[in-house]
Amino acid sequence: MRTQVGIVGAGPAGLMLSHLLHLQGIESVVVESRSRAYVEQRVRAGVLEQGSVDLLCRTGLGERLRREGMRHEGIELRFDGESHRVPMTELTGRAITVYGQQEVVKDLIAARLAAGGTILFDTEAVRLSDLDSAPVVHLRRDGRDEELHCDIVAGCDGFHGISRGAVPEGVLRTYERTYPFAWLGVLAAAPPAVDELIYANHERGFALHSLRSPQISRLYLQVAPDEDIADWPDERIWAELRARLETVPGWSLNEGPILEKGITPMRSFVVEPMQWQRLFLAGDAVHIVPPTGAKGMNLALADVALLGEALAAWYGEGRTDLLESYSETALRRVWRAQHFSWWMTSMLHRLAADDPYEARLQSATLRYVTTSRAYATSLAENYVGLPWQDLAGRIADEPGLPAGGVR
Amino acid sequence: MRTQVGIVGAGPAGLMLSHLLHLQGIESVVVESRSRAYVEQRVRAGVLEQGSVDLLCRTGLGERLRREGMRHEGIELRFDGESHRVPMTELTGRAITVYGQQEVVKDLIAARLAAGGTILFDTEAVRLSDLDSAPVVHLRRDGRDEELHCDIVAGCDGFHGISRGAVPEGVLRTYERTYPFAWLGVLAAAPPAVDELIYANHERGFALHSLRSPQISRLYLQVAPDEDIADWPDERIWAELRARLETVPGWSLNEGPILEKGITPMRSFVVEPMQWQRLFLAGDAVHIVPPTGAKGMNLALADVALLGEALAAWYGEGRTDLLESYSETALRRVWRAQHFSWWMTSMLHRLAADDPYEARLQSATLRYVTTSRAYATSLAENYVGLPWQDLAGRIADEPGLPAGGVR
Repeated sequence: MRTQVGIVGAGPAGLMLSHLLHLQGIESVVVESRSRAYVEQRVRAGVLEQGSVDLLCRTGLGERLRREGMRHEGIELRFDGESHRVPMTELTGRAITVYGQQEVVKDLIAARLAAGGTILFDTEAVRLSDLDSAPVVHLRRDGRDEELHCDIVAGCDGFHGISRGAVPEGVLRTYERTYPFAWLGVLAAAPPAVDELIYANHERGFALHSLRSPQISRLYLQVAPDEDIADWPDERIWAELRARLETVPGWSLNEGPILEKGITPMRSFVVEPMQWQRLFLAGDAVHIVPPTGAKGMNLALADVALLGEALAAWYGEGRTDLLESYSETALRRVWRAQHFSWWMTSMLHRLAADDPYEARLQSATLRYVTTSRAYATSLAENYVGLPWQDLAGRIADEPGLPAGGVR
Repeated sequence: MRTQVGIVGAGPAGLMLSHLLHLQGIESVVVESRSRAYVEQRVRAGVLEQGSVDLLCRTGLGERLRREGMRHEGIELRFDGESHRVPMTELTGRAITVYGQQEVVKDLIAARLAAGGTILFDTEAVRLSDLDSAPVVHLRRDGRDEELHCDIVAGCDGFHGISRGAVPEGVLRTYERTYPFAWLGVLAAAPPAVDELIYANHERGFALHSLRSPQISRLYLQVAPDEDIADWPDERIWAELRARLETVPGWSLNEGPILEKGITPMRSFVVEPMQWQRLFLAGDAVHIVPPTGAKGMNLALADVALLGEALAAWYGEGRTDLLESYSETALRRVWRAQHFSWWMTSMLHRLAADDPYEARLQSATLRYVTTSRAYATSLAENYVGLPWQDLAGRIADEPGLPAGGVR
């Protein structure tokens, strides 16, 4: 089998890249080890930055998103028995849209298939070879070995995928941080008691009240990293959510049957560079953020928007400059999101069992972010996403200090 | 001996309180264990917030300050081989003034003595008693024991003073953080190669280029906390300063004789509450910040501005409300400064010997603060000091979010 761009992984990154390439007349094949049903049901992130929404709409994927996505213009921060709203749209002119990752995946799969695109589900990418000249993705499906020959391989196969491992030892540098906690997430058939997300800092640990639809709540609790989900019967989950969220007079949680629950570890992880020879890496394959800043899926989409543009310039005009600068350009946005995600995580979670200074520092940070227009704007501009005008992650040129700059 | 307010410590806090009380017609006696010459020569902080300058000028202490103080409208951040200016005045409308702490002390002593005030130098405050009713400061001078009887005691005697220890065990709660490094500071007879302060993040450690006059540079290096100053001959200090500061093409350090050098530990420290019975604590006696944010002296002045106002309301109108709320009100400003000082410190110092994630996070933070107007404003508004209009530390009411607020 042969194509122009071989894409490993049918998550948001791989599918969006395939879609963007198609719009530029470039062929690709997407290889995915799981079934279509699996990837379309996989519950993950649910917050789209303004730039992600714009990208989806601009490339013809906005129909259901516009209908079902919920636009949020603020978030709520709850701490010390108070609740404060950060009015993101008022501060930045932009907003976020709540729309599940699996919905984005469904829309992308539908669009690719309608356009005659090739997605090989239930097909394992076993190994990559010849990345210096004429790359081959070695496949295994239905018990048979096959080869996908291509000009370029896009590794969009997530943290546990094979793509990153195809780069020889010593080429990539890893930057990593782990956190002494995890998130217990539940999907519940309960009408959300909120219009916007609530991020709660509480002495018992962080809690997040999110939502998926007017009938479905998405809730998270900070738990120990080695916590066993078997120790969390539904009633314990609700009791803990009430303890951490019902801290404001007159506000109470809506409860309902828990449809799904699971524990997610927390990690900050970056690999540099994001390219080696003819292999380009994107999304979770090269960087992971803790979910507190809701940046994971958005970074994946930003990566492939940049990569798609670079590939179009290469195929269309023979330009190599954008491919050559892909990693460096993408990494600027990646590190911005790394910092923001780390900051949100550090401000909101109980970090140490007994560190009263830390707790006071968090209160001071939360009080500041809810009273200073400047600091609130810094939260808001990161949360809604820094502008994507050029899709190049060149954020240094955007917000613009009035004077000074590089001397 | 008897007075209305007994003040322990002739640093900026104690002297300014005595001065403010005098302006309100309230008598005080300041007790200081060191000599006048010692406190007038002691080199400490050198950056005054706008609010501190306003306070000094408004209370008749502005003459020499206006003549010799150097107004700075920005600071420079140096990292990754680049230098960026944060235009503080452009962002906030306010500025800082470089004027040594010992100059403030000299001006305050001169003013107190000119007005017939009493400062007992070379007098040790040994013990405080009867704080619940008619306080006594037990003194020792010239080998004799004496007693200073007063209505109120103001403990302004710094971290190592006796005042904090007069509060019974179990009343105060301590919040503390230490840092795995110290500052080696030098005063050099070298014309500063800068108009504004340079804060440098470097892989060898933090460096700061400050100044005291057009002829005198003040320079700092991050060193190990157990570093011995004897291991730092002048040539080693200059070599290290060059390595960390000369990272920008065309810029070089001016060298000159080193007049003074010493090593200062780094600590974040807060004690709550700041009052017990008739003892009111202010300045370093109850809170220490790492010097990176230049907040120490400013907090001391803000504390006593608030305390002076509260005492005036009590003596003048019999009001107790401001004395009762002193600790809570002051602590809001204290924790704002704690957070800012911790943030500046964390962004600029090498925190761990080998943590590449941390180094990248710092670069990302520095890049963000030098490119986002919102984030730069948050640095600037803290550095120049949040407004003091009401001298009450009620910063929550000041910067003002456009909407939302407390729900």
